[in-house]
Amino acid sequence: TINPQRLWDTLMETARIGGTAKGGICRLTLTDLDREVRDWFRAQCDALGCTVTVDEVGNMFATRPGKRADVAPIAIGSHLDTQPTGGKFDGILGVIGGLEVMRTLHDLGYETNAPLMLVNWTNEEGSRFAPAMLGSGVYAGVFDRAFADSREDRQGVRFADAIEGIGYRGDVAPGAVTFGAMFELHIEQGPILEAEGKTVGVVTGVQGMRWYEVDLTGREAHTGSTPMHLRANALLGASRVVERVNAIALAHAPLAVATVGLLEVKPNSRNVIPGHVFFCVDMRHPDDAVLDAMERELSEAVPAIAAEIGLEVSFRKTWDSPAVRFDPDCIASVRAATERMGLPTRDIVSGAGHDAAYIARVAPTTMIFVPCAGGLSHNEAESTTFDECSAGAQVLLNAVLDYDER
Amino acid sequence: TINPQRLWDTLMETARIGGTAKGGICRLTLTDLDREVRDWFRAQCDALGCTVTVDEVGNMFATRPGKRADVAPIAIGSHLDTQPTGGKFDGILGVIGGLEVMRTLHDLGYETNAPLMLVNWTNEEGSRFAPAMLGSGVYAGVFDRAFADSREDRQGVRFADAIEGIGYRGDVAPGAVTFGAMFELHIEQGPILEAEGKTVGVVTGVQGMRWYEVDLTGREAHTGSTPMHLRANALLGASRVVERVNAIALAHAPLAVATVGLLEVKPNSRNVIPGHVFFCVDMRHPDDAVLDAMERELSEAVPAIAAEIGLEVSFRKTWDSPAVRFDPDCIASVRAATERMGLPTRDIVSGAGHDAAYIARVAPTTMIFVPCAGGLSHNEAESTTFDECSAGAQVLLNAVLDYDER
Ligand SMILES: NC(=O)NCCC(=O)O
Ligand SMILES: NC(=O)NCCC(=O)O
Repeated sequence: TINPQRLWDTLMETARIGGTAKGGICRLTLTDLDREVRDWFRAQCDALGCTVTVDEVGNMFATRPGKRADVAPIAIGSHLDTQPTGGKFDGILGVIGGLEVMRTLHDLGYETNAPLMLVNWTNEEGSRFAPAMLGSGVYAGVFDRAFADSREDRQGVRFADAIEGIGYRGDVAPGAVTFGAMFELHIEQGPILEAEGKTVGVVTGVQGMRWYEVDLTGREAHTGSTPMHLRANALLGASRVVERVNAIALAHAPLAVATVGLLEVKPNSRNVIPGHVFFCVDMRHPDDAVLDAMERELSEAVPAIAAEIGLEVSFRKTWDSPAVRFDPDCIASVRAATERMGLPTRDIVSGAGHDAAYIARVAPTTMIFVPCAGGLSHNEAESTTFDECSAGAQVLLNAVLDYDER
Repeated sequence: TINPQRLWDTLMETARIGGTAKGGICRLTLTDLDREVRDWFRAQCDALGCTVTVDEVGNMFATRPGKRADVAPIAIGSHLDTQPTGGKFDGILGVIGGLEVMRTLHDLGYETNAPLMLVNWTNEEGSRFAPAMLGSGVYAGVFDRAFADSREDRQGVRFADAIEGIGYRGDVAPGAVTFGAMFELHIEQGPILEAEGKTVGVVTGVQGMRWYEVDLTGREAHTGSTPMHLRANALLGASRVVERVNAIALAHAPLAVATVGLLEVKPNSRNVIPGHVFFCVDMRHPDDAVLDAMERELSEAVPAIAAEIGLEVSFRKTWDSPAVRFDPDCIASVRAATERMGLPTRDIVSGAGHDAAYIARVAPTTMIFVPCAGGLSHNEAESTTFDECSAGAQVLLNAVLDYDER
């Protein structure tokens, strides 16, 4: 069994790297803080005698040998980057929980059949560089390396320069470090497990998700001397789209969600009618066909709203991650683990995107969810208890051992 | 008569200081570019033998002696700061037009009865530091110096530090440099003169204007895993307020205008439901009583919208500049000037705020408007013709001489 106190202490220890006054973490991908946590991670894996490999997009793979060199490794892990207002668990629990699994096996001198591989994926959050799950996406062949390198943050810094800046451009081609299966432990980031009093979610898949970018261009003009009928107010248009995005989700209740999370006004001056607004729309649904309908509604609404106001519009889909179903054998191992432990569980479809969603394209994959208080995530107040973290890491260990023995 | 070519050349010369690729000017108040244009302005005034005085909030006064030392000076001028997407004429025409008046009198060796004073007011635009007309406001006793010093830009830089940073904190108390009347030449910044084919607007007053700041606070949460009914989306609330602000103006058509020009989202990440939005509302009407009604509607709408969504709200009025009526004697001098020149004119109430609006509280004041193409201002494409600039400066000269002889 894993050491729950060590797991918790390690979570709290790394939470200091980028820790915020409100108890969260702001550790955007490929920043100096990300370098710091990566250096720490590498040192911990080295201490366990693992071999650490870094690929060209910064994904880190720490391998612990098994009894059999002819069997592909079993991967575990998640990501160490966070949102600007991130919590202490999102992604981190999967990596630190995986580290606790490695440490437990190391302490016991336990040899698995297959090698075990602990992974830290680059830029899972998609906050600094869009889209999300970029490192695992390149690994899985969804994106190529040049695409990743070309991504720019809102300050215009390229992914390529950021990764070189922190010294985490490895020399291994993404996808060259192979494994035979992956288990990702993660917090649910939603309210379902908590509401139903379940300790573990057996994750059967991930819903479909799409991102869109919109530029609305009107005409800067004086707020005081420009009559209402002569205006082309880009923010008025954007506001109507924000309202419509919300309405589209409500029209496909209860499963649809849709949000504008990022919006920038130009020139952003109190007495200038906004001439330009850039914003991003995030739409999700477990059923890709419903997502198609939502996309149709949005793509009709945006030009219609722009035309109402006399705005020019650029509308483009920038990310499309279809709904994913996880591997039945991996799921069976998670179920076996929870049954052995007698934990209350339920099957669940992930609302958030995860590295596992892309990895599922190239290897048998599944996930293990634990609750988070109030379903709150991407929030500094994100919180999962000592016992929940411990249960999650124990299920991870047991599921890996179950899969290893099949 | 003034020298139209010299006027135009001087306008184009200073337009290079902060000139943008799109032909406008970005010369925010109290920046290095502002220092550069101030240094240039001081040198031009020195060359005419004027005495240049700078007060504690950076207002610059260049005095040319008259025949009579016992008569209070007649002031002319405007401001040299611009919006982030400012044009080449807003404010600048009033200062450079005033400089052309000074140069013309200098070349002729013409002595006015009263001394003539050319003024460059600090932070008229209110874009970097809110509110607008801050330098003239302090001069007129509407604000005190400590209030001005305490203003912060969106990066948190204080007015006090910015003015000291560029070395334009003078040692004269604001208001200590007195004058007997002021004439401000300015572009209309609206479409009326152009639409009616008038060369000059005889400005009879300035409409009332108010600024409000709003903070809406919801709860950051994951865009993918947070069901619609559990959200507190601050941007959805802000969008509803933007729409309502527009509706309030339309409900008081045709004279009312209302705008949200500045809006900031936090944490501003594609997959985080916005937890906080800060924005500013600008409302204007020539009749303060109508403005009262608009304010009532807004101040009821904001908390109602916040309550709908479950947001916390902070709503405050940050600026209130009542409607202004200019001085009949000053207006008469402008009329006399335009009649002598046979120019097509009309009476007009200013939609934009101007330093003259505050100066009117402490001295007889009026303004002279010239058209701008399409009524466009606070836009890099802002444009007023050679002939219009020239006519404006000539009316300014003639009005000043008329007033001087009364
Ligand atoms: N798990 C997680 O928050 N991933 C970020 C990608 C997304 O779902 O937007
Ligand atoms: N003239 C001018 O654009 N002034 C700025 C103050 C305002 O009207 O908002």
